[in-house]
Amino acid sequence: MSDYKAFRVELADKIAHVEINRPEKINAMNADFWSEIVDIFRWIEDNDEVRVVVLSGAGKHFSSGIDLMLLASVGSQLGPDAGRNARTLRRKILELQASFNAVDNCSKPVIAAVQGYCLGGAIDLISACDMRYATVDAQFSIKEIDIGMAADVGTLQRLPRIIGDGMMRELAYTGRTIDGEEAQRLGLVNRTFADVAALRDGVLDVARQIAAKSPIAVQGTKEMIRYMRDHRVDDGLEYVATWNAAMLQSADLRVAMAAHMSKQMPEFAD
Amino acid sequence: MSDYKAFRVELADKIAHVEINRPEKINAMNADFWSEIVDIFRWIEDNDEVRVVVLSGAGKHFSSGIDLMLLASVGSQLGPDAGRNARTLRRKILELQASFNAVDNCSKPVIAAVQGYCLGGAIDLISACDMRYATVDAQFSIKEIDIGMAADVGTLQRLPRIIGDGMMRELAYTGRTIDGEEAQRLGLVNRTFADVAALRDGVLDVARQIAAKSPIAVQGTKEMIRYMRDHRVDDGLEYVATWNAAMLQSADLRVAMAAHMSKQMPEFAD
Amino acid sequence: MSDYKAFRVELADKIAHVEINRPEKINAMNADFWSEIVDIFRWIEDNDEVRVVVLSGAGKHFSSGIDLMLLASVGSQLGPDAGRNARTLRRKILELQASFNAVDNCSKPVIAAVQGYCLGGAIDLISACDMRYATVDAQFSIKEIDIGMAADVGTLQRLPRIIGDGMMRELAYTGRTIDGEEAQRLGLVNRTFADVAALRDGVLDVARQIAAKSPIAVQGTKEMIRYMRDHRVDDGLEYVATWNAAMLQSADLRVAMAAHMSKQMPEFAD
Amino acid sequence: MSDYKAFRVELADKIAHVEINRPEKINAMNADFWSEIVDIFRWIEDNDEVRVVVLSGAGKHFSSGIDLMLLASVGSQLGPDAGRNARTLRRKILELQASFNAVDNCSKPVIAAVQGYCLGGAIDLISACDMRYATVDAQFSIKEIDIGMAADVGTLQRLPRIIGDGMMRELAYTGRTIDGEEAQRLGLVNRTFADVAALRDGVLDVARQIAAKSPIAVQGTKEMIRYMRDHRVDDGLEYVATWNAAMLQSADLRVAMAAHMSKQMPEFAD
Amino acid sequence: MSDYKAFRVELADKIAHVEINRPEKINAMNADFWSEIVDIFRWIEDNDEVRVVVLSGAGKHFSSGIDLMLLASVGSQLGPDAGRNARTLRRKILELQASFNAVDNCSKPVIAAVQGYCLGGAIDLISACDMRYATVDAQFSIKEIDIGMAADVGTLQRLPRIIGDGMMRELAYTGRTIDGEEAQRLGLVNRTFADVAALRDGVLDVARQIAAKSPIAVQGTKEMIRYMRDHRVDDGLEYVATWNAAMLQSADLRVAMAAHMSKQMPEFAD
Amino acid sequence: MSDYKAFRVELADKIAHVEINRPEKINAMNADFWSEIVDIFRWIEDNDEVRVVVLSGAGKHFSSGIDLMLLASVGSQLGPDAGRNARTLRRKILELQASFNAVDNCSKPVIAAVQGYCLGGAIDLISACDMRYATVDAQFSIKEIDIGMAADVGTLQRLPRIIGDGMMRELAYTGRTIDGEEAQRLGLVNRTFADVAALRDGVLDVARQIAAKSPIAVQGTKEMIRYMRDHRVDDGLEYVATWNAAMLQSADLRVAMAAHMSKQMPEFAD
Repeated sequence: MSDYKAFRVELADKIAHVEINRPEKINAMNADFWSEIVDIFRWIEDNDEVRVVVLSGAGKHFSSGIDLMLLASVGSQLGPDAGRNARTLRRKILELQASFNAVDNCSKPVIAAVQGYCLGGAIDLISACDMRYATVDAQFSIKEIDIGMAADVGTLQRLPRIIGDGMMRELAYTGRTIDGEEAQRLGLVNRTFADVAALRDGVLDVARQIAAKSPIAVQGTKEMIRYMRDHRVDDGLEYVATWNAAMLQSADLRVAMAAHMSKQMPEFAD
Repeated sequence: MSDYKAFRVELADKIAHVEINRPEKINAMNADFWSEIVDIFRWIEDNDEVRVVVLSGAGKHFSSGIDLMLLASVGSQLGPDAGRNARTLRRKILELQASFNAVDNCSKPVIAAVQGYCLGGAIDLISACDMRYATVDAQFSIKEIDIGMAADVGTLQRLPRIIGDGMMRELAYTGRTIDGEEAQRLGLVNRTFADVAALRDGVLDVARQIAAKSPIAVQGTKEMIRYMRDHRVDDGLEYVATWNAAMLQSADLRVAMAAHMSKQMPEFAD
Repeated sequence: MSDYKAFRVELADKIAHVEINRPEKINAMNADFWSEIVDIFRWIEDNDEVRVVVLSGAGKHFSSGIDLMLLASVGSQLGPDAGRNARTLRRKILELQASFNAVDNCSKPVIAAVQGYCLGGAIDLISACDMRYATVDAQFSIKEIDIGMAADVGTLQRLPRIIGDGMMRELAYTGRTIDGEEAQRLGLVNRTFADVAALRDGVLDVARQIAAKSPIAVQGTKEMIRYMRDHRVDDGLEYVATWNAAMLQSADLRVAMAAHMSKQMPEFAD
Repeated sequence: MSDYKAFRVELADKIAHVEINRPEKINAMNADFWSEIVDIFRWIEDNDEVRVVVLSGAGKHFSSGIDLMLLASVGSQLGPDAGRNARTLRRKILELQASFNAVDNCSKPVIAAVQGYCLGGAIDLISACDMRYATVDAQFSIKEIDIGMAADVGTLQRLPRIIGDGMMRELAYTGRTIDGEEAQRLGLVNRTFADVAALRDGVLDVARQIAAKSPIAVQGTKEMIRYMRDHRVDDGLEYVATWNAAMLQSADLRVAMAAHMSKQMPEFAD
Repeated sequence: MSDYKAFRVELADKIAHVEINRPEKINAMNADFWSEIVDIFRWIEDNDEVRVVVLSGAGKHFSSGIDLMLLASVGSQLGPDAGRNARTLRRKILELQASFNAVDNCSKPVIAAVQGYCLGGAIDLISACDMRYATVDAQFSIKEIDIGMAADVGTLQRLPRIIGDGMMRELAYTGRTIDGEEAQRLGLVNRTFADVAALRDGVLDVARQIAAKSPIAVQGTKEMIRYMRDHRVDDGLEYVATWNAAMLQSADLRVAMAAHMSKQMPEFAD
Repeated sequence: MSDYKAFRVELADKIAHVEINRPEKINAMNADFWSEIVDIFRWIEDNDEVRVVVLSGAGKHFSSGIDLMLLASVGSQLGPDAGRNARTLRRKILELQASFNAVDNCSKPVIAAVQGYCLGGAIDLISACDMRYATVDAQFSIKEIDIGMAADVGTLQRLPRIIGDGMMRELAYTGRTIDGEEAQRLGLVNRTFADVAALRDGVLDVARQIAAKSPIAVQGTKEMIRYMRDHRVDDGLEYVATWNAAMLQSADLRVAMAAHMSKQMPEFAD
């Protein structure tokens, strides 16, 4: 693993732990953050040893969202022609989106562990993860509305597939802060924990369970669920039939069956 | 504002209050209702001063749904040729649907406040709103099944995007009545209140919060959420990038930032 | 009704009761199961007397999913050429999917009653039903992950339309077992019952309510909800207008209206 | 028929003839044009006597496209805030589009007869018609590129469904003028005629043939073709089955059959 | 091969020849036709020896379309309730469509050879084939318009993907007859031949070329083209990548490469 | 511009000329080709001075398609597990596709100039361009069928949007070679030229015309046409309205108008 400025990355027991590491800045998302996250997820993609990813924030908070300095620097690139400014802004937004698309498109499950603030861009980020777990006192807010803009790096696109439509709109229009418990009730997080230590243990436990399964089966499962977010049921059925036409020829079925018969834990190749 | 027969409409503090005003008929939706609602929402659309809409029903009930006299009058237009009758009925249904499309397509958030009966066409109506709030003892029922027809002005199209599939079907096939509490559990309403007075206060409070935000940001946010109901995540990301290419050039970001720095409430132009 | 090996089928009071009937094999889905279910639902489709279907499992459990003997026999058909094997597997998967598509495409509501184990293929099956009811101690698990494969007969395609995205992924990646109560919280089942007897009573009660409604209205309602799972709101509105252009010419509206006026139960033709 | 400023409208023999009538301005599309065309097509829609529409331009040319005065007046409504200007422009464009949507959505076939110039907005207009016929020396050009903008009232959306992709792009990027003959080769027009008189005769002949068919059949056929522009084959098949479920109960089949048997021209009700 | 009443079916040199065989009835499509065609294409599907299908009509004409007796018998099943009639008609239409879907969904290329009349239902049929070849004097007409109905077994759904939009509408609204030459100009047929003998030779030549290719490659190619008719380019790219993930492991690439190197004709397994 | 091994790249008069430069290998697409083309199009994307791209092949031929050495090297990476091989192949195909997606997604028009062989992968490549021009004696063939595989880097996905369905299938199933003239008749190329010199002149002439237009207008036009390949007409209309909401505020309209008034050539900023 390379050295990162905005992250700390570790790989142990098939689990990649990606931690936003600017606690003194409430893990605000600066220029380093946006480019390094792409490199990190490319490494995860290319490395078959990684079977599952845990994404967290160092310190008391998960993240306060985009660094306002970065926003300001984008503003400074604008000139007198509104048309050419639009071209510049559109490119910049697409570029920022690409950073979180790297998380969303990751072929391995990505689990977010959230404590403290999870504001603005941080909601965009966790919306691109597979599952979210939090401390009871975590604080979630779609903060973009308070800086006079529509969120544009994923919250408004992905969160409506995760939580119900009615509350989605209330949170997006008002920016109201909710805690871990309400987040769980809405389906934003799967489970809450009393404190950060319990959260880490709980998330690692889920990660370990996933890492023990056949990676061929887990990645196929993820691809199918990802696919269904935007496709029809009949297309999804045809897609999984085509996918499994190859994947059911893998050795992992035999390994799993044999382990099942002998009541032992199966061991799968990466 | 013009005079309406089926509605009472007020505008105060950037909030348009649209009230169905036929309490003696349990706010049944008659011919006036269906045509006036289009005019009202066109006025809302054209009037930048309106930033949010509250939709309610005068009296003890929100609404008992379509006026059966109206149904009967449609029936009386049918003749001997089943094909030409089909053409007539199809046009009439599309015309009624257009009335609720005007609510759904409104560029400003629309909040429904529901007490008492909310039956048949009234469910179609609130399904076209952004958010729903109710008294605990409100009564919701997809009543169309009991008059021998499939609901055709929006419930079966929009409600499956709001509540879960399993309960959606139970309610639609059986017409079972649920109260405010169960409605909240299903995600149909965001919150319940003890009585009508508390409901009005609660809804106004949400409306006021929204009215205080940048209208450019709120309307962009609504457009993006509306868009995601029917589009793919990748299309949504491209759309918001194109949208914000223009909208991030608005003054509202600077106004919001400046207010944030000086810890003051921002004031946005309409 | 013909004689079935894997099922017991009855028709009474407009309700078809389809019971998986291999209790000594925990109702595992063998070759008979997969072909007979197609015949049964074709009979249901062609028989206007059937207005609603109850699907259950004989004995202590609903079903343990696909029979592993069947999987093994598919494996034995593979040869040395990976490309031709893929063609064989793809066809076989599409064929198995077609069995559950017959349930999903049934024009009459299908209600699943679940007790005991509901594992692997059994989740695929109940995901193709309209509604699910269970005993509190029922046990649900997306078991496919544990035999080294991505579920490919419907769970990953249909369940994401029924339960929330976050928990969907946790259950699919880990294969974790949940009971009836958690299943209800997630929206997987509509209601839970203390034991099998109460479950049967409760499900029959729902079935009876549906059977008493206009079959034209119920089937139209189902078609519209089914349609919305994969289509846009505007397309759904146009579709229901076209549908009702014919169906509102049915006698059932008059029958329902007349019954409403005279405060009597309406009687509808099949 | 009302009096129109930008059009002359006649109805004879079930054929509505809609003629752009500002020959001294090369039939440039001014404010009257954009609002009157909506009224005209609403009248066509509501009037069952109209079975087919012929759209033409008075004088030597079909139309030179949008009136530049109108463009200028839109420009004059813009203020200092780029975000609010964007909101204004977006609304205005959607409003102009709605005028041509009225043509596209017309339930009766619309035939364009083109002579002389057919430039810019005029291409947008004829792209919204069902069929196009022209004189050999007609001149077509996607002129918008030459005033520094992407065409935004339909050409870029509808023309790619009419002509091949490769030539579509050449014409749109270069604004190159093509004559009737090349237009026919590309599939933009169905047939060319030596001069305006022959064009009118030829178009009227097609219109008369269509007017003699069952209007139920013609309008169903149009709806199905319109639908296929944007939908899947399987959806289209289901849609026509639902449509014809009502329409095949019309008397027109019997009328057509009887005429067929007796070798006479059938007479259909409107 | 079984005995068929409406068809003659032969298999030689990997080519299945399916001939409509009611020349004395101008190959009109009767009840036998609609059910046998499903059986024939199921046999083709299940028989890996068949690599390509030629579809033709015995005698002087390809086919005059649906047998009017069949239409009449459907009419005789209708009763007094327009709603239940609609249900009956919708089912019947879907059932007839299923017969041509069997052709469209065939995993092997289907080539239509057309001489003489090709009217009404016959156009629906050839629109479901991969390619069409004809004699110069063949006569094509979308005849349904003349019996007072919108074509509902595929022409209006599939033909717009084959020929240009403008001519599609003219032919569908007017029922105008075109000959082989015009059909070729429109892209409806790939090539024309002077007479039936030349047509059969020409079509067989194409069929033989296809039969000599790798069946894995041909069937993959067909699946991809079929898929693109209704899907996005990005989805198509992902689909072919998933498909070829299995299929490129086939021996056929090595066989093809080796033959290429040694300048010999490759021999592929079925 | 960097040095490339497989290409020669020049920029003059706003036109980027990208030439495949391995004439001694018939411009076969080797590993360098696939990675360099991504870099080249990223440079084009980032460089506002480039307004249009010409893509050609050095020497007597455009390109013979993918280098067979590259295919062989992919084969050598496969191991004993068919499932993991599938994962490897799928990734590799997606990676190769990404190279041509870079061409397809380029925001500036890309024009292909084709002489001599244009085989296999070369068809995939030109299908990703905006327009194609060729010498009369150019030779096009979807050669993949002859090496036992379905084309998987774009031909089967993009070409059906460019040429008619019937001929598309014939060419894809048989691999038949067509010359420039037939290619033009099918719509694959826009125009043919007698020889390479005339081709270059003709293509440069088109490129120069495009380079002289407003780049804001050209790029908007391309984005809209690209969008329509995969979207609905109503979505396209909404998209262009959103796009032009920003772009019509550009100075280019005023520049174009002023030039139009003064009968001079406009000069646009990059």
